[in-house]
Amino acid sequence: MIVRHLKEAQATDRRVVDPKGNWESTRLLLKDDGMGFSFHMTTIYAGKSFRMHYVNHLESVYCVRGKGNIKTLDDNVVYEIAPGTVYALDKHDEHILTAETELELACVFNPPVTGREVHNADGAYELEE
Amino acid sequence: MIVRHLKEAQATDRRVVDPKGNWESTRLLLKDDGMGFSFHMTTIYAGKSFRMHYVNHLESVYCVRGKGNIKTLDDNVVYEIAPGTVYALDKHDEHILTAETELELACVFNPPVTGREVHNADGAYELEE
Repeated sequence: MIVRHLKEAQATDRRVVDPKGNWESTRLLLKDDGMGFSFHMTTIYAGKSFRMHYVNHLESVYCVRGKGNIKTLDDNVVYEIAPGTVYALDKHDEHILTAETELELACVFNPPVTGREVHNADGAYELEE
Repeated sequence: MIVRHLKEAQATDRRVVDPKGNWESTRLLLKDDGMGFSFHMTTIYAGKSFRMHYVNHLESVYCVRGKGNIKTLDDNVVYEIAPGTVYALDKHDEHILTAETELELACVFNPPVTGREVHNADGAYELEE
């Protein structure tokens, strides 16, 4: 069994801080853990709004804390995000995520993130070669 | 994109209550959603302690709220559970989960649960035929 703690993981290279200052994410479970998915606790800083497009991954996001919204760009529909909301990008949906207050999100990626990806110019994580 | 809310889902058959009275679980994402994993928000009622053995699934569990512990039965080691703890049953570890207070847990299953499983006598979810 694997057991980890968010606070301890945040003091390691499991914590990744967005160079653009929008978010930080601590990857509690990665590809190497062999679960077939990765699990990240992600903070979106209050007031930030940015575009993402995970063309290589499916992602689900559960809101633990905070208030915000997500707009899907193919139809311009806006969905409110509050504690208890889950959204799943089952169609690799391009979207804009907005944090009205700081958002604490539990994120699951399939395929699992290795921990070495960065968001590219298209707001995606590249797959490893 | 799929968007759901815990409170609304709790009013549907996504909410499953353990007939033995130990837990309830609301399956926010299931196999049919096509994410390759399922995502459940699970409450373990305060004071409950019970054995589980998911021989057919890998499961990760993130503690959002509450205090408890997990004991792995192959080595009798006890790990504390508090907000921010994640454990991953990467070896289908047989375990006893104890809720000292009510636990709110974010659970990910691979392969995804269909929503029609029940815990069998061995504390596992059966796979669908």
